Amino acid sequence: MKYCAEQRLAKKSLNINPIQRGGILTPEAKVALHEFEDGYSVCDYCEGRLDKINKPPIHEFLEEFSKFINVDIVRPTHGAREGKFIVIHSLCEEGDKIVVDGNAHYTTYVAAERNKTDTIVVPHSGYPNYEIKVEKWKETLDNVLDKYDNVKLAILTHVDGNYGNLTDAKKIGKICRRKGIPLLLNCAYTMGRMPINAKKLKADFVVGSGHKSMAASGPIGILGLSEEWEDEILRKSKKYPNKEIELLGCTSRGAPIVTLMASFPHVKERVKNWDQEVKKTRYFVKEMEKIEGIKQLGIKPKMHDLVNFETPIFEKISKKHPKKGYFLYHELKKRNITGVKPGYTKTLKCSVYRMDKEQIDYIINSFREIVDAGIGI
Amino acid sequence: MKYCAEQRLAKKSLNINPIQRGGILTPEAKVALHEFEDGYSVCDYCEGRLDKINKPPIHEFLEEFSKFINVDIVRPTHGAREGKFIVIHSLCEEGDKIVVDGNAHYTTYVAAERNKTDTIVVPHSGYPNYEIKVEKWKETLDNVLDKYDNVKLAILTHVDGNYGNLTDAKKIGKICRRKGIPLLLNCAYTMGRMPINAKKLKADFVVGSGHKSMAASGPIGILGLSEEWEDEILRKSKKYPNKEIELLGCTSRGAPIVTLMASFPHVKERVKNWDQEVKKTRYFVKEMEKIEGIKQLGIKPKMHDLVNFETPIFEKISKKHPKKGYFLYHELKKRNITGVKPGYTKTLKCSVYRMDKEQIDYIINSFREIVDAGIGI
Repeated sequence: MKYCAEQRLAKKSLNINPIQRGGILTPEAKVALHEFEDGYSVCDYCEGRLDKINKPPIHEFLEEFSKFINVDIVRPTHGAREGKFIVIHSLCEEGDKIVVDGNAHYTTYVAAERNKTDTIVVPHSGYPNYEIKVEKWKETLDNVLDKYDNVKLAILTHVDGNYGNLTDAKKIGKICRRKGIPLLLNCAYTMGRMPINAKKLKADFVVGSGHKSMAASGPIGILGLSEEWEDEILRKSKKYPNKEIELLGCTSRGAPIVTLMASFPHVKERVKNWDQEVKKTRYFVKEMEKIEGIKQLGIKPKMHDLVNFETPIFEKISKKHPKKGYFLYHELKKRNITGVKPGYTKTLKCSVYRMDKEQIDYIINSFREIVDAGIGI
Repeated sequence: MKYCAEQRLAKKSLNINPIQRGGILTPEAKVALHEFEDGYSVCDYCEGRLDKINKPPIHEFLEEFSKFINVDIVRPTHGAREGKFIVIHSLCEEGDKIVVDGNAHYTTYVAAERNKTDTIVVPHSGYPNYEIKVEKWKETLDNVLDKYDNVKLAILTHVDGNYGNLTDAKKIGKICRRKGIPLLLNCAYTMGRMPINAKKLKADFVVGSGHKSMAASGPIGILGLSEEWEDEILRKSKKYPNKEIELLGCTSRGAPIVTLMASFPHVKERVKNWDQEVKKTRYFVKEMEKIEGIKQLGIKPKMHDLVNFETPIFEKISKKHPKKGYFLYHELKKRNITGVKPGYTKTLKCSVYRMDKEQIDYIINSFREIVDAGIGI
């Protein structure tokens, strides 16, 4: 077979790419996947709305999910980016302003651009911490509100995908609420990894990603909202009064939603062990930084498993190595470690989320070996 | 396990629901699914764009797919409805007019509503054929163009989901082209079942559905377009020049796209046998109509596997039967046949697509038995 018969190396390896660590299926999800693999598999007993299906128990699952993240209403979406688009599209007109943090994911900008709205950026603190500071958020928001009367939404990245910095969402949420600006919290890297309490964080909207952080097959996301926004976000079609316009009727059905559901009991448990994950990450960072020429970027100490290392040592080795910048990728591959960008050596984005001590030590030792051998060239 | 550990009855049954028949996975897709089940599984070697990934060979697959349906450019989407939304969103402003056929899927209207555009409907011919006639299309389009100067798009349902009527897309395409109105052809029920040649049909855009008609896990769709629309539909982000705004960067990744790819060689072959499928459907209709009180709705003879029967006999039985309207569902379930709406007896939407003669005869005989027993009550 030409397409896709190949075996995925990464499946049999230690994949250290942060976008891959949280989306590995549970054994329960694999069973569900097999049972619901066909296109419209979850629609056998549908009466017109995905979120109301009782068999499989999608409706009950969403009810329980809303308690899990403490929001009034939950809907499945195709992903976090689609959730952001839905909220912007519902709340904003062309030319309206949205305040975003300087570590926002590219999809926040693209979702805003698709809606022809303008993004105003709260700058991060720059090298080496790239921190989104509460005071800077307040100051920027104040300035923007002085200048424009069409500021409609704020989008804060709970943990960003570049440095894995955890923002103080609660304080920022309070500021937004006080100023009357609704806040969307992008929890793509947090919902399903660490506990989320949307009401406590004063978030009007939260988006999450099943394939990124909830042990689900992609693509599927979660949009949570407080009930005061229900009429706007979940407005119904005039011609088809049961259908929610922004969801185009139904969103992610079949394999993605059943794997999300099947993994949910595991996800509920794993967020309780978040402290352990952070502890493991801090150990990982500590040991990695013992290697000369490797230094963690972003806020210290780590509050999330996504780590970005500055790695001048790899760049130095790449200049002498016969494989040039690709040496790191190849050396790791030899050791059954995947998930680094081939050809790139300046920085290293990685995660040891859900790995055990032995695996983490193996990774640290592998990097140490690669550096030692590289210095000797 | 609470969610999804249950076995799906429909998976082990003959499912006659037309939305289910075309989305049953091939053995090759099941292998691929297992290999790429995790969330970001296809992104191991991504350099920033889903449609450019070479491993697995998504890029090559899309190139080949564009030849399969004879369009210049192909992109994966989350589904046919999302493809329609993308085109409307790119081409239309609020208040613009879209001409659609009277058998359009609800998602055509909802996609238009989400864009705040108005739909003008070309009426079908009414009971019992519900046909979209070429002359009616021409007449309506002429009237609309006389009246409005903001008619931006026509959307034609190639085969509709209510009656399985095949429209004369080629003639309608020619009319639209002559009038200068771009045509989007909704091929959710045709692409992957019967051959599609977008250029021959004069369609500027085509949308298809992997989970509906291309033996893929959902949700995934295909958007095909002619190159003259590339700059509008696939416009890039200003801030992230590699990212396509309407696709929010990337769309359906992971399990849906690998199953679509793995089934593609099978799909390419199966469309060549479309005549056989139509023949089987006609045999099915002929035998079903021999049962008193069962009559096919829609155009005759059938040109597509989706059949809608008017079934006054079931309604009659339901009035005397202790299970009321639910008798049909239960009688079929006893016989291991699923896919009819529980409680509903007025009409029967079904398909025997991809079933063999023995299975089709078993279904016909089951209906005959159920009617005979019902009459005897």
